[in-house]
Amino acid sequence: MFEKGESAARNELLLSFKSLGNANVMIQKIFNMIGQSKFFEDFTVNDVEKLTSFMHAYEVEAGTTIIREGDIDDYMLFIIEGRVNILKTDSNGERRPMTIAGPGTTLGEMSMIDGEPRFASCIALDATTFAVLSRESMVEIIMEEPSFGSKILIKLITMLSQRLRSTSSELVHYLEHSQTQAI
Amino acid sequence: MFEKGESAARNELLLSFKSLGNANVMIQKIFNMIGQSKFFEDFTVNDVEKLTSFMHAYEVEAGTTIIREGDIDDYMLFIIEGRVNILKTDSNGERRPMTIAGPGTTLGEMSMIDGEPRFASCIALDATTFAVLSRESMVEIIMEEPSFGSKILIKLITMLSQRLRSTSSELVHYLEHSQTQAI
Repeated sequence: MFEKGESAARNELLLSFKSLGNANVMIQKIFNMIGQSKFFEDFTVNDVEKLTSFMHAYEVEAGTTIIREGDIDDYMLFIIEGRVNILKTDSNGERRPMTIAGPGTTLGEMSMIDGEPRFASCIALDATTFAVLSRESMVEIIMEEPSFGSKILIKLITMLSQRLRSTSSELVHYLEHSQTQAI
Repeated sequence: MFEKGESAARNELLLSFKSLGNANVMIQKIFNMIGQSKFFEDFTVNDVEKLTSFMHAYEVEAGTTIIREGDIDDYMLFIIEGRVNILKTDSNGERRPMTIAGPGTTLGEMSMIDGEPRFASCIALDATTFAVLSRESMVEIIMEEPSFGSKILIKLITMLSQRLRSTSSELVHYLEHSQTQAI
């Protein structure tokens, strides 16, 4: 079902972070951030507890690179506390800030699913805690709890669709603008 | 699981197309287009037959609007034969061509899942046949065949991820270009 991303150096960064153990130790903080999260908006308390039990929590200091563009990893993460800067390298090799993500935001879901290299880098602006959902855990959820697994997958599709709509709209705007300049 | 998109005028266009019945009447043509399709690339013959049995086939003449930007629909489609022009309305109200899609391409998967209005219009360039997967059928697949349902959902996520990577890259390119012009 998931064939790619089996590189040896996979998840290299993740192994360097301070582990807080199973994410259910953070359950109260996770409930605190849920109000800010599109991902969890139609999840029941039971769903959140179930998903959390499949996740691992980590904390990092401000300035830490959480996700490095180009890396081969196989997990996504949910920011529990702290803000994260998202940067993408442009063709001159310079890192261009794209957006800032806060508690409740999911990061890295594309690589979790498709195994392609990380598209952008994520650097902690504050001391940041986050919960990690690995591809392996996602497969476990799908096998053990297929209906809950579908709910998560549908959620991911919804979020990607929304991001694609907004990115495509921005692109149409720029194309329009650049054509206007050319006239 | 899918709460939105229950508008009265839902699927209005679809009802105007010539129905060819269950898509399994087109199974040979569907097998013919599979080689060109990213969606089906790791599907078994059995998977394709199973999915096809949940779909309905339609044919339209050249010039027909297959999907209309802004409409509330709840289905996606697979082009079996013919080419389709994808257009998006810009802020001046003009339709801007975005790309041309051929056999094997999926269209409209975002609205099938998230129930938001159609993002762009799709107009047949040739006489075109396509197979439709409705949200209702998708729910049926998830309920009746959860593991197959997950396979389709993962496929949709992979395709959306790839599209998001490519659209975001284009956007970064334009942002870079516009900044260079400003210097």
